[in-house]
Amino acid sequence: MPPKITTELLRQLRQAMGNLKYTAEPIQAYIVPSVDAHQSEYIAPCDCRREFISGFNGSAGTAIITEHHAAMWTDGRYFLQAAQQMDSNWTLMKMGLKETPSQEDWLINVLPDSSKVGVDPWILPSDQWETMSKALSSAGHTLVPIKENLIDIIWEDKPARPTLPLMTLGLAYTGMSWMDKITALRSKMAERKISWIVVTALDEVAWLFNLRGADVEYNPVFFSYAIIGMSSIRLFINGERITDAAVKDHLQLEVPTKSEYTVQIHEYESILTELQSICANLGPKEKIWICDKASFALTEAIPKLHRCLVPYTPICLFKAVKNATEIQGMRNAHIKDAVALCELFSWLEKEIPKSNVTEISAAEKANELRSQQEDFVDLSFPTISSVGPNGAIIHYRPLPETNRTLTLNEIYLLDSGAQFKDGTTDVTRTMHFGNPSPFEKECFTYVLKGHIAVSAAVFPNGTKGHLLDSFARSALWESGLDYLHGTGHGVGCFLNVHEGPCGISYKTFADEPLEAGMILSDEPGYYEDGKFGIRIENIVLVVSTKPKYNYRNRGSLTFEPITLVPIQTKMINAEMLTEKERTWLNDYHQKCREVVGAELERQGRHEALRWLIRETQPIA
Amino acid sequence: MPPKITTELLRQLRQAMGNLKYTAEPIQAYIVPSVDAHQSEYIAPCDCRREFISGFNGSAGTAIITEHHAAMWTDGRYFLQAAQQMDSNWTLMKMGLKETPSQEDWLINVLPDSSKVGVDPWILPSDQWETMSKALSSAGHTLVPIKENLIDIIWEDKPARPTLPLMTLGLAYTGMSWMDKITALRSKMAERKISWIVVTALDEVAWLFNLRGADVEYNPVFFSYAIIGMSSIRLFINGERITDAAVKDHLQLEVPTKSEYTVQIHEYESILTELQSICANLGPKEKIWICDKASFALTEAIPKLHRCLVPYTPICLFKAVKNATEIQGMRNAHIKDAVALCELFSWLEKEIPKSNVTEISAAEKANELRSQQEDFVDLSFPTISSVGPNGAIIHYRPLPETNRTLTLNEIYLLDSGAQFKDGTTDVTRTMHFGNPSPFEKECFTYVLKGHIAVSAAVFPNGTKGHLLDSFARSALWESGLDYLHGTGHGVGCFLNVHEGPCGISYKTFADEPLEAGMILSDEPGYYEDGKFGIRIENIVLVVSTKPKYNYRNRGSLTFEPITLVPIQTKMINAEMLTEKERTWLNDYHQKCREVVGAELERQGRHEALRWLIRETQPIA
Repeated sequence: MPPKITTELLRQLRQAMGNLKYTAEPIQAYIVPSVDAHQSEYIAPCDCRREFISGFNGSAGTAIITEHHAAMWTDGRYFLQAAQQMDSNWTLMKMGLKETPSQEDWLINVLPDSSKVGVDPWILPSDQWETMSKALSSAGHTLVPIKENLIDIIWEDKPARPTLPLMTLGLAYTGMSWMDKITALRSKMAERKISWIVVTALDEVAWLFNLRGADVEYNPVFFSYAIIGMSSIRLFINGERITDAAVKDHLQLEVPTKSEYTVQIHEYESILTELQSICANLGPKEKIWICDKASFALTEAIPKLHRCLVPYTPICLFKAVKNATEIQGMRNAHIKDAVALCELFSWLEKEIPKSNVTEISAAEKANELRSQQEDFVDLSFPTISSVGPNGAIIHYRPLPETNRTLTLNEIYLLDSGAQFKDGTTDVTRTMHFGNPSPFEKECFTYVLKGHIAVSAAVFPNGTKGHLLDSFARSALWESGLDYLHGTGHGVGCFLNVHEGPCGISYKTFADEPLEAGMILSDEPGYYEDGKFGIRIENIVLVVSTKPKYNYRNRGSLTFEPITLVPIQTKMINAEMLTEKERTWLNDYHQKCREVVGAELERQGRHEALRWLIRETQPIA
Repeated sequence: MPPKITTELLRQLRQAMGNLKYTAEPIQAYIVPSVDAHQSEYIAPCDCRREFISGFNGSAGTAIITEHHAAMWTDGRYFLQAAQQMDSNWTLMKMGLKETPSQEDWLINVLPDSSKVGVDPWILPSDQWETMSKALSSAGHTLVPIKENLIDIIWEDKPARPTLPLMTLGLAYTGMSWMDKITALRSKMAERKISWIVVTALDEVAWLFNLRGADVEYNPVFFSYAIIGMSSIRLFINGERITDAAVKDHLQLEVPTKSEYTVQIHEYESILTELQSICANLGPKEKIWICDKASFALTEAIPKLHRCLVPYTPICLFKAVKNATEIQGMRNAHIKDAVALCELFSWLEKEIPKSNVTEISAAEKANELRSQQEDFVDLSFPTISSVGPNGAIIHYRPLPETNRTLTLNEIYLLDSGAQFKDGTTDVTRTMHFGNPSPFEKECFTYVLKGHIAVSAAVFPNGTKGHLLDSFARSALWESGLDYLHGTGHGVGCFLNVHEGPCGISYKTFADEPLEAGMILSDEPGYYEDGKFGIRIENIVLVVSTKPKYNYRNRGSLTFEPITLVPIQTKMINAEMLTEKERTWLNDYHQKCREVVGAELERQGRHEALRWLIRETQPIA
């Protein structure tokens, strides 16, 4: 693909930057972030503004356009792709390299004195606004909100914002009615003397109302906002979907008597004016909760005296601790997922020797097998199906031009997952279908030791996930190896595969303490550039455990694997495992065999069952 | 001791709070922090203002006085002591308990509308000023700086600020002249385009000029500030000590030709006016470095456009990485320290059965033995000498009323250290002179496993210390145990025994990455309330190591123990140790025997030598 020619688009954009119809004074720079108004990980085509103006379509990147420059900041995953997709109007700013200036430093360097830098206040989160604004004003410039998005103005055939039908989820899936969730939220608000909460994250709205959508890829969410008060509920959402009988019934929109559970439906775009009118009528001591990652536009609408910024909303915290129904759903989803993967791996074993399976066709086969399972909805993220050197590219996604054939000589890494109506899955297995080298086995075993060290860790109630990260690396570190990504992320229940506020990483300190019922991934890896990638990922549930003692009655936690897919023993150098690690692995495989075996039997998938039984033999 | 009667003092203070001689408008509250203008850990008697006004003399506490209230915030270590030392004018605010309001919340609750809250801007660090000021103004109040300290006004017999003689350190101790340090600092300033740096931490001034003092207990520092520019050096210091011939010579005060190394001596109190005059003459792009823990008074004097706040100054970072001479000095100091402790422990073995050794007399004996060693200057912190239940009080310091006798039945914990001219020591050993119970041995062995896990850890260059903290806890966690303090702190070289910017703790995220040459403590523990305390503390040096691989050429680090005192094998349940742990312990003991044994031999301390040889027998 040749790069996108952006000369004319940039000319139009620069014209708009000086057009007093859109801005009180001409602006000397315009920032185009890559997110939507909800800080979503996956965005709809109508929100791909940075891609539209530059041609670069990677998942992360920020464009800044000045009168004479157009620059794109992106990270190491995308240096090559961005360079190929952008024309010579653009300068690539390689983030993470020492010589690359930050956006602030670059702006301060290129801008004339007392410049105005514009940005759409809807797509810049308020915490980022603060940082950028501070840096610019320390150098005499000003960050200004531009109400109309200047990209939208020049984007002629911009797609419409999707308004796809909603799915209602009953108690069998959610374990808690949306009214009970509102009640719990209000009691938390009362406890903290909060009058209102503005809900801006799409998965929080979806969770709160037990609704799902399909407005963006992979995440079953829908464009919306909500404002919840102690006696009022406002849902901001567009489209006919809200007139659907099941949705009307679910939200009790036609119940004639008004109560504190009456949902008022508003247009998606009216959130700001509604919020302003709420703010205009606040008592002197009333407070409004809003997440510090909400857009500057909404945050700014709440006067400082009434604004209570939180790094995580109480909805985010509630959502992270799964109830019994959700946990059962997640278990079911992972059994179905394991059925699909056992079938895939047993099929691959037969097909690879024929040299007719590629990264793309293997991913398609995985997708097909998953879709045969009950309550399958979609994938939960783009499948990473990678052979040999492609496995060393951590966020690899097979494309026709990079597509490799699976062979008996190279390691195959598959990181994939699905959305089922009862749960979300995400699993990585690394396999060799021939004879792995001693070095490959050595590295795999280090990664496995790290995986087990986290999974089997016992730690006090209230420990933050980042304190467990080094357990995953210790065996690699001992031999001078490491991996440059975090070890785990929170996982939603038929929601986003990546969710806060918990995680296991060396990078953050702001994660919330772990508690029983939280669900995370455990996914250490090792990547040998140009050769192979190894990652072993299970989804794990935080559970209470009772060790010998109970210091200060704090209680202890550990993890229980929810993912039940064999870990290839052929890749293991068993001599490197301790007795405890061997026992963990054999117990895990026994559970895979019992639980997934029963389901394979039930579904009559006998070949996959034979594969499972063979792959779960205990190691000595 | 009865509580201090503060009725009259509080009356006088409240009068001063309304006296327009000291404040433009009357203030409704006055905050009395417990620190000095340099945020020192140990303070001089003239800075003990919080103790003067309240009677409470613990190391941590903040007093706030309003028209009708006097409240004292302190932490769990001091609840009992504060309650005993304060009269009924005071309300004790127990920090860490859920029901205890923060200072901000309490003020907002008790103050009349639009109140002024006063504080001495010299003793509130600017980062704390920001937090407090923000909270108060969100509730309509104002934090105001009160130039004259109101406690000093009512403190009739206030001691003078000490100006004790200085000690100059030559190259044999420092390894680097102060001029070379200034040159290195200026090159870092040039690299970051910084024109000036304001040095406010006492240990940073002492390190920079290769001078030591004795103005506060335990830390060999002297009251001073410094301002370093690209071609000027200003040292703010009082007293005749600067006219001492050795000091004049060391600082080259009488060299007639002026150069960029000419030190201008100013009065300690003139720092603010000098800084203001520097700021008045700055070019538009000039920047001044100052630590964000510096006083609000000094920070505020630098206009925002010129102010460059840093969590750690480059001096702090330089100081943390010890040079070859400093490392050699630290090694020497620890050998001398080990000699004293071997002698102490062998003496204790003989004396304890006679029931005539107490916590206090054992501490005195340790002090006496240390002071016999060459270049001994002082202790490096108050000795923690604790028997049985007193050992469970983490910051215990024996007092006549708590003093216990050492016996054959209870665990003895000794945490002590000294300032030698060549280095600073800090070591904890936990001993049983009779027969420890299986539970005591079990706990000791968990702590030892944690100690070894940190000490023997291999990790990539640039890893932050907080990522190693969980290694120290893993064995305890596995059995449901833990300890509620950090695992390690940076240690100065003949400087403060606690220094930044590195450390090993779950509590912080802002520590700087570890690099070879840094020196820290490794001190996990376990405390059984009312029964015993266990802590095993070595000082360790960060060193390069070469494991099998070298991922991305980052290089690897590990620790080398500098402390060489036997770890009592009688307290170990050897069956709980892995092969690797046993080898670590036996290797460590062999090194203790060789290195300290040679010095005991040289000093003719034969009884201690026999003790050392017996205590360093390998375990099977």
